[in-house]
Amino acid sequence: MRVAVNISYNGRNFSGFQYQHDYRTVQGTLEKQLKRMHKDFVRIHASSRTDAGVHALEQYFHFDTPIDLEPDKWKFILNRAMPEDILINDVTIAADDFHSRFDATGKTYRYKVYTSVKNPFYDGLKTHYPYELDISLMKEAMAPFIGTHDFTTFSSAKTEIKNKVRTIKTFEVIETDDGFDFVITGTGFLYNMVRILAAYVLECGRGIRTPDTLNMIAAKDRTIIPKTAPAEGLYLEKVWYEKL
Amino acid sequence: MRVAVNISYNGRNFSGFQYQHDYRTVQGTLEKQLKRMHKDFVRIHASSRTDAGVHALEQYFHFDTPIDLEPDKWKFILNRAMPEDILINDVTIAADDFHSRFDATGKTYRYKVYTSVKNPFYDGLKTHYPYELDISLMKEAMAPFIGTHDFTTFSSAKTEIKNKVRTIKTFEVIETDDGFDFVITGTGFLYNMVRILAAYVLECGRGIRTPDTLNMIAAKDRTIIPKTAPAEGLYLEKVWYEKL
Repeated sequence: MRVAVNISYNGRNFSGFQYQHDYRTVQGTLEKQLKRMHKDFVRIHASSRTDAGVHALEQYFHFDTPIDLEPDKWKFILNRAMPEDILINDVTIAADDFHSRFDATGKTYRYKVYTSVKNPFYDGLKTHYPYELDISLMKEAMAPFIGTHDFTTFSSAKTEIKNKVRTIKTFEVIETDDGFDFVITGTGFLYNMVRILAAYVLECGRGIRTPDTLNMIAAKDRTIIPKTAPAEGLYLEKVWYEKL
Repeated sequence: MRVAVNISYNGRNFSGFQYQHDYRTVQGTLEKQLKRMHKDFVRIHASSRTDAGVHALEQYFHFDTPIDLEPDKWKFILNRAMPEDILINDVTIAADDFHSRFDATGKTYRYKVYTSVKNPFYDGLKTHYPYELDISLMKEAMAPFIGTHDFTTFSSAKTEIKNKVRTIKTFEVIETDDGFDFVITGTGFLYNMVRILAAYVLECGRGIRTPDTLNMIAAKDRTIIPKTAPAEGLYLEKVWYEKL
Protein backbone atom coordinates (compact mmCIF):
# COMPACT_ATOMS: atom_id res chain seq x y z
CA MET A 1 0.00 0.00 0.00
CA ARG A 2 0.98 3.62 -0.53
CA VAL A 3 1.47 5.78 2.52
CA ALA A 4 1.48 9.61 2.38
CA VAL A 5 3.11 11.52 5.21
CA ASN A 6 2.85 15.19 6.19
CA ILE A 7 5.95 16.39 8.07
CA SER A 8 7.53 19.55 9.49
CA TYR A 9 11.24 20.05 9.92
CA ASN A 10 13.68 22.65 11.09
CA GLY A 11 16.16 22.78 8.21
CA ARG A 12 18.92 24.44 10.22
CA ASN A 13 20.95 21.32 10.87
CA PHE A 14 20.12 19.43 7.67
CA SER A 15 22.05 19.51 4.38
CA GLY A 16 18.68 19.74 2.64
CA PHE A 17 15.94 17.22 2.02
CA GLN A 18 17.57 15.02 -0.63
CA TYR A 19 19.74 12.07 0.37
CA GLN A 20 23.48 12.64 0.31
CA HIS A 21 26.01 10.11 1.47
CA ASP A 22 27.88 11.34 4.59
CA TYR A 23 25.57 14.31 5.16
CA ARG A 24 22.62 14.65 7.50
CA THR A 25 19.53 15.00 5.31
CA VAL A 26 15.79 14.73 5.96
CA GLN A 27 15.40 11.94 3.38
CA GLY A 28 18.36 10.03 4.81
CA THR A 29 16.92 10.29 8.34
CA LEU A 30 13.49 9.04 7.23
CA GLU A 31 14.77 6.25 4.97
CA LYS A 32 17.07 5.00 7.71
CA GLN A 33 14.09 4.57 10.02
CA LEU A 34 11.96 2.93 7.31
CA LYS A 35 14.80 0.52 6.56
CA ARG A 36 14.93 -0.39 10.24
CA MET A 37 11.18 -1.15 10.22
CA HIS A 38 11.17 -3.04 6.90
CA LYS A 39 14.55 -4.78 7.14
CA ASP A 40 14.83 -3.57 3.56
CA PHE A 41 15.45 -0.31 1.71
CA VAL A 42 12.32 1.84 1.18
CA ARG A 43 12.55 4.85 -1.13
CA ILE A 44 10.55 7.95 -0.24
CA HIS A 45 9.32 10.54 -2.78
CA ALA A 46 8.79 14.14 -1.60
CA SER A 47 6.71 17.00 -2.99
CA SER A 48 9.82 19.24 -2.89
CA ARG A 49 13.50 18.68 -2.38
CA THR A 50 14.14 21.68 -0.16
CA ASP A 51 17.71 23.04 -0.10
CA ALA A 52 20.14 23.01 2.81
CA GLY A 53 18.86 25.23 5.61
CA VAL A 54 15.32 25.53 4.21
CA HIS A 55 12.49 24.62 6.60
CA ALA A 56 9.13 22.95 6.17
CA LEU A 57 5.98 23.71 8.12
CA GLU A 58 4.27 21.17 5.88
CA GLN A 59 5.99 18.88 3.41
CA TYR A 60 4.62 15.66 1.93
CA PHE A 61 6.31 12.44 0.92
CA HIS A 62 5.01 9.00 0.03
CA PHE A 63 6.36 5.46 0.01
CA ASP A 64 5.14 1.94 -0.72
CA THR A 65 5.09 -0.69 1.98
CA PRO A 66 3.83 -4.21 2.62
CA ILE A 67 3.31 -3.29 6.28
CA ASP A 68 -0.38 -2.87 7.07
CA LEU A 69 -0.84 -0.37 9.88
CA GLU A 70 -3.49 2.17 10.86
CA PRO A 71 -2.47 5.78 10.04
CA ASP A 72 -2.24 6.72 13.72
CA LYS A 73 0.01 3.76 14.40
CA TRP A 74 2.32 4.81 11.55
CA LYS A 75 2.38 8.32 12.96
CA PHE A 76 3.24 7.09 16.43
CA ILE A 77 5.97 4.70 15.30
CA LEU A 78 7.60 7.20 12.96
CA ASN A 79 7.44 10.07 15.46
CA ARG A 80 9.02 7.95 18.15
CA ALA A 81 12.08 7.44 15.95
CA MET A 82 12.45 11.02 14.73
CA PRO A 83 15.07 13.50 16.00
CA GLU A 84 13.97 16.73 17.70
CA ASP A 85 14.00 18.69 14.42
CA ILE A 86 11.53 16.52 12.48
CA LEU A 87 7.83 16.12 13.35
CA ILE A 88 5.38 13.72 11.67
CA ASN A 89 2.13 15.75 11.51
CA ASP A 90 -0.13 13.28 9.81
CA VAL A 91 -0.17 9.95 7.96
CA THR A 92 -2.72 8.97 5.29
CA ILE A 93 -3.21 5.71 3.41
CA ALA A 94 -3.21 7.09 -0.15
CA ALA A 95 -4.49 5.75 -3.47
CA ASP A 96 -1.99 3.46 -5.22
CA ASP A 97 -1.39 6.06 -7.93
CA PHE A 98 -0.98 9.04 -5.60
CA HIS A 99 2.31 10.88 -6.12
CA SER A 100 3.33 13.59 -3.65
CA ARG A 101 5.25 15.51 -6.31
CA PHE A 102 3.20 15.09 -9.48
CA ASP A 103 -0.21 15.40 -7.78
CA ALA A 104 0.61 18.66 -6.00
CA THR A 105 -1.56 21.38 -7.52
CA GLY A 106 0.26 24.21 -5.78
CA LYS A 107 2.60 25.24 -3.00
CA THR A 108 2.77 28.03 -0.46
CA TYR A 109 6.12 29.34 0.76
CA ARG A 110 6.81 31.82 3.55
CA TYR A 111 9.96 33.93 3.73
CA LYS A 112 10.78 35.41 7.18
CA VAL A 113 12.88 38.54 7.58
CA TYR A 114 13.62 40.56 10.70
CA THR A 115 14.97 44.08 10.60
CA SER A 116 15.77 44.80 14.27
CA VAL A 117 19.16 44.30 15.95
CA LYS A 118 20.69 40.82 15.46
CA ASN A 119 18.96 38.14 17.53
CA PRO A 120 21.13 35.06 18.21
CA PHE A 121 17.97 33.01 18.85
CA TYR A 122 16.77 33.55 15.27
CA ASP A 123 20.00 32.02 13.95
CA GLY A 124 19.00 29.67 11.15
CA LEU A 125 15.29 30.55 11.53
CA LYS A 126 14.88 34.06 10.08
CA THR A 127 16.94 36.19 7.73
CA HIS A 128 18.52 39.26 9.29
CA TYR A 129 18.04 42.30 7.05
CA PRO A 130 18.78 45.30 9.29
CA TYR A 131 17.37 48.05 7.07
CA GLU A 132 14.29 50.22 7.08
CA LEU A 133 11.84 48.70 4.61
CA ASP A 134 9.05 50.63 2.87
CA ILE A 135 6.03 48.33 2.75
CA SER A 136 4.33 50.27 -0.08
CA LEU A 137 7.41 49.92 -2.30
CA MET A 138 7.48 46.19 -1.53
CA LYS A 139 3.80 45.83 -2.42
CA GLU A 140 4.39 47.74 -5.65
CA ALA A 141 7.21 45.31 -6.53
CA MET A 142 5.13 42.24 -5.58
CA ALA A 143 1.74 42.90 -7.20
CA PRO A 144 2.76 42.40 -10.87
CA PHE A 145 3.99 38.84 -10.16
CA ILE A 146 0.39 37.66 -9.74
CA GLY A 147 -0.63 35.72 -12.83
CA THR A 148 1.21 33.57 -15.36
CA HIS A 149 4.71 34.66 -16.39
CA ASP A 150 8.01 33.36 -17.66
CA PHE A 151 10.22 33.48 -14.54
CA THR A 152 13.63 33.19 -16.24
CA THR A 153 14.74 36.48 -14.62
CA PHE A 154 13.73 35.19 -11.19
CA SER A 155 15.17 31.67 -11.16
CA SER A 156 18.55 30.02 -10.97
CA ALA A 157 20.32 29.42 -14.28
CA LYS A 158 21.47 26.08 -12.81
CA THR A 159 18.60 23.94 -14.08
CA GLU A 160 17.72 21.67 -16.97
CA ILE A 161 14.07 22.73 -16.90
CA LYS A 162 13.26 24.52 -20.16
CA ASN A 163 9.73 25.71 -19.43
CA LYS A 164 10.03 28.60 -16.98
CA VAL A 165 6.39 29.64 -17.10
CA ARG A 166 4.71 29.51 -13.71
CA THR A 167 1.50 30.88 -12.21
CA ILE A 168 1.53 32.91 -8.99
CA LYS A 169 -1.85 33.02 -7.26
CA THR A 170 -1.12 35.20 -4.23
CA PHE A 171 1.91 37.11 -2.93
CA GLU A 172 1.45 38.94 0.36
CA VAL A 173 3.60 40.79 2.86
CA ILE A 174 2.71 40.59 6.55
CA GLU A 175 4.21 42.94 9.13
CA THR A 176 5.53 41.04 12.20
CA ASP A 177 6.87 42.25 15.58
CA ASP A 178 10.35 42.77 14.20
CA GLY A 179 10.15 42.53 10.42
CA PHE A 180 8.13 41.03 7.60
CA ASP A 181 6.87 37.67 6.37
CA PHE A 182 6.35 37.20 2.64
CA VAL A 183 3.79 34.54 1.72
CA ILE A 184 3.54 33.31 -1.85
CA THR A 185 1.28 30.66 -3.41
CA GLY A 186 1.72 29.32 -6.91
CA THR A 187 1.26 26.26 -9.08
CA GLY A 188 4.96 25.57 -8.90
CA PHE A 189 8.30 27.24 -8.35
CA LEU A 190 11.61 27.12 -10.19
CA TYR A 191 14.94 26.48 -8.50
CA ASN A 192 15.74 29.31 -6.02
CA MET A 193 12.74 31.28 -7.31
CA VAL A 194 11.26 32.26 -3.93
CA ARG A 195 14.66 33.31 -2.60
CA ILE A 196 15.35 35.42 -5.70
CA LEU A 197 11.90 37.02 -5.50
CA ALA A 198 12.57 37.78 -1.80
CA ALA A 199 15.95 39.36 -2.61
CA TYR A 200 14.33 41.56 -5.27
CA VAL A 201 11.43 42.67 -3.07
CA LEU A 202 13.80 43.43 -0.15
CA GLU A 203 16.04 45.59 -2.36
CA CYS A 204 12.94 47.49 -3.51
CA GLY A 205 11.74 47.94 0.09
CA ARG A 206 15.15 49.20 1.16
CA GLY A 207 15.11 51.74 -1.66
CA ILE A 208 18.26 50.52 -3.44
CA ARG A 209 16.23 49.29 -6.42
CA THR A 210 13.16 50.85 -8.07
CA PRO A 211 10.21 48.47 -8.53
CA ASP A 212 10.00 47.66 -12.24
CA THR A 213 8.64 44.13 -12.10
CA LEU A 214 6.92 43.78 -15.47
CA ASN A 215 9.96 44.99 -17.41
CA MET A 216 12.21 42.70 -15.40
CA ILE A 217 9.99 39.71 -16.13
CA ALA A 218 9.96 40.67 -19.84
CA ALA A 219 13.77 40.84 -19.93
CA LYS A 220 14.10 37.07 -19.22
CA ASP A 221 17.60 37.76 -17.97
CA ARG A 222 18.83 36.15 -14.75
CA THR A 223 21.80 38.53 -14.44
CA ILE A 224 19.68 41.59 -13.54
CA ILE A 225 18.80 40.14 -10.10
CA PRO A 226 22.17 38.86 -8.94
CA LYS A 227 21.09 38.13 -5.35
CA THR A 228 19.46 35.07 -3.80
CA ALA A 229 18.13 35.64 -0.26
CA PRO A 230 19.53 33.20 2.36
CA ALA A 231 18.00 29.75 2.85
CA GLU A 232 17.42 30.21 6.59
CA GLY A 233 14.39 32.51 6.08
CA LEU A 234 12.54 30.12 3.75
CA TYR A 235 9.70 27.82 4.85
CA LEU A 236 7.67 25.46 2.70
CA GLU A 237 4.33 26.27 4.34
CA LYS A 238 1.75 24.16 2.52
CA VAL A 239 1.48 21.71 -0.36
CA TRP A 240 -1.90 21.70 -2.11
CA TYR A 241 -3.58 18.52 -3.42
CA GLU A 242 -7.00 17.93 -4.96
CA LYS A 243 -7.18 14.39 -3.69
CA LEU A 244 -5.67 13.06 -0.42
CA MET B 1 42.59 48.94 30.80
CA ARG B 2 39.82 46.55 31.83
CA VAL B 3 36.94 46.05 29.43
CA ALA B 4 33.59 44.54 30.52
CA VAL B 5 31.32 43.06 27.86
CA ASN B 6 27.63 42.13 27.99
CA ILE B 7 26.78 39.39 25.47
CA SER B 8 23.89 37.12 24.42
CA TYR B 9 24.35 33.75 22.82
CA ASN B 10 22.31 30.86 21.54
CA GLY B 11 23.93 27.90 23.27
CA ARG B 12 22.51 25.30 20.89
CA ASN B 13 25.63 24.86 18.80
CA PHE B 14 28.23 25.51 21.50
CA SER B 15 29.88 22.96 23.78
CA GLY B 16 29.35 25.42 26.62
CA PHE B 17 31.04 28.68 27.53
CA GLN B 18 34.39 27.40 28.77
CA TYR B 19 37.28 26.85 26.35
CA GLN B 20 37.84 23.27 25.22
CA HIS B 21 40.39 22.29 22.64
CA ASP B 22 38.72 20.93 19.46
CA TYR B 23 35.21 22.01 20.52
CA ARG B 24 33.24 25.09 19.56
CA THR B 25 32.84 27.15 22.74
CA VAL B 26 31.78 30.74 23.43
CA GLN B 27 35.07 31.50 25.19
CA GLY B 28 37.10 29.96 22.36
CA THR B 29 35.21 32.03 19.77
CA LEU B 30 35.74 35.28 21.69
CA GLU B 31 39.40 34.65 22.57
CA LYS B 32 40.18 33.77 18.95
CA GLN B 33 38.90 37.17 17.84
CA LEU B 34 40.73 39.01 20.65
CA LYS B 35 43.94 37.23 19.69
CA ARG B 36 43.47 38.37 16.11
CA MET B 37 43.10 41.99 17.29
CA HIS B 38 45.96 41.90 19.81
CA LYS B 39 48.38 39.62 17.95
CA ASP B 40 48.66 38.01 21.37
CA PHE B 41 46.59 35.74 23.62
CA VAL B 42 44.01 37.57 25.76
CA ARG B 43 42.21 35.66 28.52
CA ILE B 44 38.56 36.46 29.21
CA HIS B 45 36.81 35.91 32.57
CA ALA B 46 33.05 35.32 32.59
CA SER B 47 30.42 35.71 35.29
CA SER B 48 29.25 32.12 34.65
CA ARG B 49 30.62 29.18 32.73
CA THR B 50 27.33 28.02 31.24
CA ASP B 51 27.11 24.34 30.26
CA ALA B 52 26.80 22.90 26.75
CA GLY B 53 23.44 23.90 25.25
CA VAL B 54 22.67 26.59 27.86
CA HIS B 55 21.83 30.05 26.49
CA ALA B 56 22.53 33.57 27.68
CA LEU B 57 20.26 36.56 27.25
CA GLU B 58 22.83 38.50 29.24
CA GLN B 59 26.23 37.24 30.28
CA TYR B 60 29.26 39.33 31.28
CA PHE B 61 32.96 38.80 30.80
CA HIS B 62 35.98 41.07 31.21
CA PHE B 63 39.51 41.20 29.87
CA ASP B 64 42.56 43.46 30.09
CA THR B 65 43.91 45.17 27.03
CA PRO B 66 46.48 47.80 26.04
CA ILE B 67 44.19 48.84 23.14
CA ASP B 68 42.50 52.14 23.88
CA LEU B 69 39.13 52.31 22.13
CA GLU B 70 35.78 53.93 22.84
CA PRO B 71 33.13 51.43 24.10
CA ASP B 72 31.04 51.79 20.92
CA LYS B 73 34.07 51.10 18.76
CA TRP B 74 34.81 47.93 20.77
CA LYS B 75 31.20 46.86 20.36
CA PHE B 76 31.28 47.45 16.62
CA ILE B 77 34.59 45.66 16.04
CA LEU B 78 33.67 42.65 18.19
CA ASN B 79 30.16 42.31 16.73
CA ARG B 80 31.53 42.41 13.20
CA ALA B 81 33.64 39.33 13.95
CA MET B 82 30.99 37.31 15.81
CA PRO B 83 29.08 34.36 14.34
CA GLU B 84 25.28 34.52 14.03
CA ASP B 85 24.75 32.93 17.44
CA ILE B 86 26.66 35.49 19.55
CA LEU B 87 25.66 39.13 19.99
CA ILE B 88 27.70 41.81 21.79
CA ASN B 89 25.04 43.90 23.60
CA ASP B 90 27.22 46.43 25.33
CA VAL B 91 30.83 47.27 26.18
CA THR B 92 31.93 49.26 29.26
CA ILE B 93 35.38 50.47 30.31
CA ALA B 94 35.43 49.03 33.85
CA ALA B 95 37.45 49.86 36.97
CA ASP B 96 40.83 48.08 37.07
CA ASP B 97 39.66 45.89 39.95
CA PHE B 98 36.26 44.95 38.44
CA HIS B 99 35.73 41.18 38.18
CA SER B 100 32.72 39.85 36.26
CA ARG B 101 32.51 36.76 38.45
CA PHE B 102 33.45 37.96 41.94
CA ASP B 103 31.62 41.28 41.72
CA ALA B 104 28.31 39.76 40.62
CA THR B 105 25.80 40.26 43.45
CA GLY B 106 23.18 37.98 41.92
CA LYS B 107 21.94 36.21 38.84
CA THR B 108 18.60 35.63 37.19
CA TYR B 109 17.92 32.45 35.22
CA ARG B 110 14.91 31.58 33.08
CA TYR B 111 13.86 28.00 32.32
CA LYS B 112 11.55 27.57 29.30
CA VAL B 113 9.21 24.60 28.95
CA TYR B 114 6.51 23.96 26.37
CA THR B 115 3.79 21.38 26.87
CA SER B 116 2.07 21.32 23.45
CA VAL B 117 2.88 18.89 20.60
CA LYS B 118 6.58 18.75 19.63
CA ASN B 119 7.71 21.83 17.72
CA PRO B 120 10.82 21.26 15.56
CA PHE B 121 11.52 25.02 15.60
CA TYR B 122 11.98 24.99 19.38
CA ASP B 123 14.72 22.36 19.03
CA GLY B 124 17.54 23.46 21.32
CA LEU B 125 15.58 26.51 22.53
CA LYS B 126 12.86 25.17 24.86
CA THR B 127 12.39 21.92 26.77
CA HIS B 128 9.54 19.73 25.56
CA TYR B 129 7.50 18.45 28.51
CA PRO B 130 4.22 17.20 26.99
CA TYR B 131 2.19 16.85 30.17
CA GLU B 132 -0.60 18.77 31.82
CA LEU B 133 0.94 20.92 34.53
CA ASP B 134 -0.94 22.23 37.56
CA ILE B 135 0.29 25.75 38.20
CA SER B 136 -0.90 25.82 41.81
CA LEU B 137 1.07 22.66 42.64
CA MET B 138 4.14 24.22 41.00
CA LYS B 139 3.73 27.41 43.02
CA GLU B 140 3.37 25.34 46.21
CA ALA B 141 6.64 23.57 45.36
CA MET B 142 8.45 26.81 44.49
CA ALA B 143 7.49 29.18 47.33
CA PRO B 144 9.53 27.55 50.14
CA PHE B 145 12.78 27.99 48.19
CA ILE B 146 12.68 31.75 48.80
CA GLY B 147 15.20 32.62 51.47
CA THR B 148 18.56 31.21 52.54
CA HIS B 149 18.95 27.42 52.49
CA ASP B 150 21.50 24.66 52.11
CA PHE B 151 20.89 23.41 48.55
CA THR B 152 22.71 20.07 48.77
CA THR B 153 19.53 18.22 47.74
CA PHE B 154 19.16 20.46 44.69
CA SER B 155 22.67 20.54 43.26
CA SER B 156 25.04 18.21 41.48
CA ALA B 157 27.25 16.06 43.66
CA LYS B 158 30.03 16.69 41.11
CA THR B 159 31.57 19.75 42.75
CA GLU B 160 34.37 20.70 45.10
CA ILE B 161 32.38 23.54 46.59
CA LYS B 162 31.74 22.78 50.27
CA ASN B 163 29.40 25.61 51.20
CA LYS B 164 26.04 24.85 49.61
CA VAL B 165 24.12 27.66 51.27
CA ARG B 166 22.58 30.06 48.78
CA THR B 167 19.90 32.76 48.94
CA ILE B 168 16.97 32.76 46.55
CA LYS B 169 15.29 36.15 46.22
CA THR B 170 12.46 35.42 43.77
CA PHE B 171 11.15 32.31 41.99
CA GLU B 172 8.20 32.83 39.65
CA VAL B 173 6.27 30.82 37.10
CA ILE B 174 4.87 32.62 34.04
CA GLU B 175 2.29 31.01 31.76
CA THR B 176 3.23 31.33 28.07
CA ASP B 177 1.34 30.53 24.83
CA ASP B 178 2.36 26.89 24.97
CA GLY B 179 3.87 26.23 28.38
CA PHE B 180 5.65 27.89 31.27
CA ASP B 181 8.73 29.98 31.98
CA PHE B 182 10.32 29.71 35.41
CA VAL B 183 12.31 32.77 36.48
CA ILE B 184 14.62 32.59 39.47
CA THR B 185 16.88 35.21 41.02
CA GLY B 186 19.45 34.47 43.70
CA THR B 187 22.81 35.52 45.05
CA GLY B 188 24.43 32.53 43.41
CA PHE B 189 23.68 29.06 42.12
CA LEU B 190 25.38 25.70 42.55
CA TYR B 191 26.28 23.39 39.67
CA ASN B 192 23.10 22.23 37.85
CA MET B 193 20.97 23.80 40.58
CA VAL B 194 18.45 25.59 38.33
CA ARG B 195 18.00 22.49 36.16
CA ILE B 196 17.44 20.29 39.24
CA LEU B 197 14.96 22.81 40.69
CA ALA B 198 13.16 22.84 37.31
CA ALA B 199 12.99 19.02 37.21
CA TYR B 200 11.54 18.96 40.74
CA VAL B 201 8.93 21.67 40.08
CA LEU B 202 7.89 19.99 36.81
CA GLU B 203 7.39 16.63 38.53
CA CYS B 204 5.23 18.36 41.14
CA GLY B 205 3.19 20.15 38.44
CA ARG B 206 2.66 16.91 36.59
CA GLY B 207 1.41 15.27 39.76
CA ILE B 208 4.03 12.50 39.94
CA ARG B 209 5.60 14.03 43.05
CA THR B 210 3.93 15.78 46.01
CA PRO B 211 5.39 19.18 46.88
CA ASP B 212 7.39 18.78 50.08
CA THR B 213 10.08 21.36 49.57
CA LEU B 214 11.12 22.19 53.14
CA ASN B 215 11.60 18.55 54.08
CA MET B 216 13.55 17.91 50.89
CA ILE B 217 15.85 20.85 51.61
CA ALA B 218 16.32 19.59 55.18
CA ALA B 219 17.27 16.11 53.94
CA LYS B 220 20.47 17.44 52.24
CA ASP B 221 20.39 14.37 50.03
CA ARG B 222 21.02 14.68 46.30
CA THR B 223 19.63 11.21 45.56
CA ILE B 224 15.98 12.15 46.28
CA ILE B 225 15.79 14.33 43.13
CA PRO B 226 17.48 12.12 40.55
CA LYS B 227 16.53 14.25 37.54
CA THR B 228 18.23 17.24 35.95
CA ALA B 229 16.08 19.10 33.39
CA PRO B 230 17.71 19.43 29.91
CA ALA B 231 20.16 22.24 29.18
CA GLU B 232 18.24 23.51 26.14
CA GLY B 233 15.52 25.20 28.26
CA LEU B 234 17.97 27.19 30.41
CA TYR B 235 18.82 30.86 29.87
CA LEU B 236 21.12 33.04 31.95
CA GLU B 237 18.87 36.10 31.87
CA LYS B 238 20.68 38.76 33.92
CA VAL B 239 23.81 39.23 36.00
CA TRP B 240 23.48 41.78 38.76
CA TYR B 241 26.31 44.16 39.77
CA GLU B 242 26.41 47.04 42.24
CA LYS B 243 29.05 48.89 40.29
CA LEU B 244 29.51 48.89 36.48
